[in-house]
Amino acid sequence: MSGEEALLSAEELEARLRQVGAERYHNLHRFHRRLHSGGCTYEEVQAWALNRYYYQSMIPIKDATVLTRLTSSEDRRQWRKRIEDHDGLREGDGGIERWLKLTDSLGFSRDYVISTEGILPATRFAVDAYVEFCRARSVVEAVASSLTELFSPNIIGERVAGMLAHYNFVSRETLAYFSQRPPQAQRDAEFALAYSIGHARTRAEQDLVIKALEFKCAVLWSQLDALWGAYVEHEIPPGAWRPGQTAAQGAAA
Amino acid sequence: MSGEEALLSAEELEARLRQVGAERYHNLHRFHRRLHSGGCTYEEVQAWALNRYYYQSMIPIKDATVLTRLTSSEDRRQWRKRIEDHDGLREGDGGIERWLKLTDSLGFSRDYVISTEGILPATRFAVDAYVEFCRARSVVEAVASSLTELFSPNIIGERVAGMLAHYNFVSRETLAYFSQRPPQAQRDAEFALAYSIGHARTRAEQDLVIKALEFKCAVLWSQLDALWGAYVEHEIPPGAWRPGQTAAQGAAA
Repeated sequence: MSGEEALLSAEELEARLRQVGAERYHNLHRFHRRLHSGGCTYEEVQAWALNRYYYQSMIPIKDATVLTRLTSSEDRRQWRKRIEDHDGLREGDGGIERWLKLTDSLGFSRDYVISTEGILPATRFAVDAYVEFCRARSVVEAVASSLTELFSPNIIGERVAGMLAHYNFVSRETLAYFSQRPPQAQRDAEFALAYSIGHARTRAEQDLVIKALEFKCAVLWSQLDALWGAYVEHEIPPGAWRPGQTAAQGAAA
Repeated sequence: MSGEEALLSAEELEARLRQVGAERYHNLHRFHRRLHSGGCTYEEVQAWALNRYYYQSMIPIKDATVLTRLTSSEDRRQWRKRIEDHDGLREGDGGIERWLKLTDSLGFSRDYVISTEGILPATRFAVDAYVEFCRARSVVEAVASSLTELFSPNIIGERVAGMLAHYNFVSRETLAYFSQRPPQAQRDAEFALAYSIGHARTRAEQDLVIKALEFKCAVLWSQLDALWGAYVEHEIPPGAWRPGQTAAQGAAA
């Protein structure tokens, strides 16, 4: 696709972005079908939470990276809300803290989770690629890469309902990370969509916006691929968390 | 491990590095066992070659990145040989060109291979993580991350013998990339080992050297994990090459 193809209307661009989600968003992944339908073992849920912590912990870093690219105070005021959501207003507050309550409830020591030493290398590579994308690519691509938030309220609904129905080792309280997200995600997605549509002024830029969302879908999808191979098929790569391990090797559990 | 533990002798450090290889090098991965024993289908070999091309194409970028970190002319003279090996002395020469002869023989159009658009996202994330490691970490870690070359002559021997014995669609000529590597890898590994041992002057630095090799093993292992899920299990992530496709979607095969 070259820059000489016709500029898409705002409606067409939004439709194409939603189509990317319909084809590539990770609600379609076999791991999520397994997780949401009660098909995961306790250890698979543990592995999912342990690895997802890394992604969550890097979201404020990613958002601070995007902040370095936004050149208007108003844009930065809007984007800062994301960092506040995840880090909270004080100790004990925020999305990251709610994720740690989930990993606490799954038997992990906090030090172990926060150290990230048990995560799959593929988790780290995917999440770090996301942060680097936001640093290195154009600012409209960096903003557009957040547009999976257009799709997250639906998957959150499926996930909370599914997990509460099927796993007696989670509760509304331990899944509290998710109950807070939909209005935040919706607010964030509206800003990012308007920004992406407004700032992509050539067809080439619009194509980059679409590719940025495809990239982000791949960041999420590849993490689930890695979880499946390691913990559903029990082909755990050297050095990663092994079921039964709740703290760092050699440390007290 | 803190910097207050005892400094390892050169022999102990080398032994620990070799132990990392014995535990984590990708000759142990189920995909390589399958590849070398004739267990792969033609499409799995195609997928392996298509994805491995990305790694090969980024090696000169990685080595140029390390070159930016080496502050002596002699060190750079030694390290430059690696870039010459892969890019060659002229058009049609070098390791990357020999890899393209392999992908040619497996039915891919060169434009498609070189575009890298068919590769698995996990391949891209792992390889890009390797380049970024060499950019961002200390210089001795960057050099040490190349030390998988201590182990590559053995796997190359297994691979060439195994593939020639079992697959009638490869030949010594199409596997020529591999026949040239062992003396190059040995020369490179000797330099990198001496550099790593000589420049890691505290126990903390020695531990980082060991961790750098573990990191590199994870870069290689995760790529094979991704190949297994996609092409052995047929769970190909959205957007990646699908068997039967020899050129870009919509382009002439």
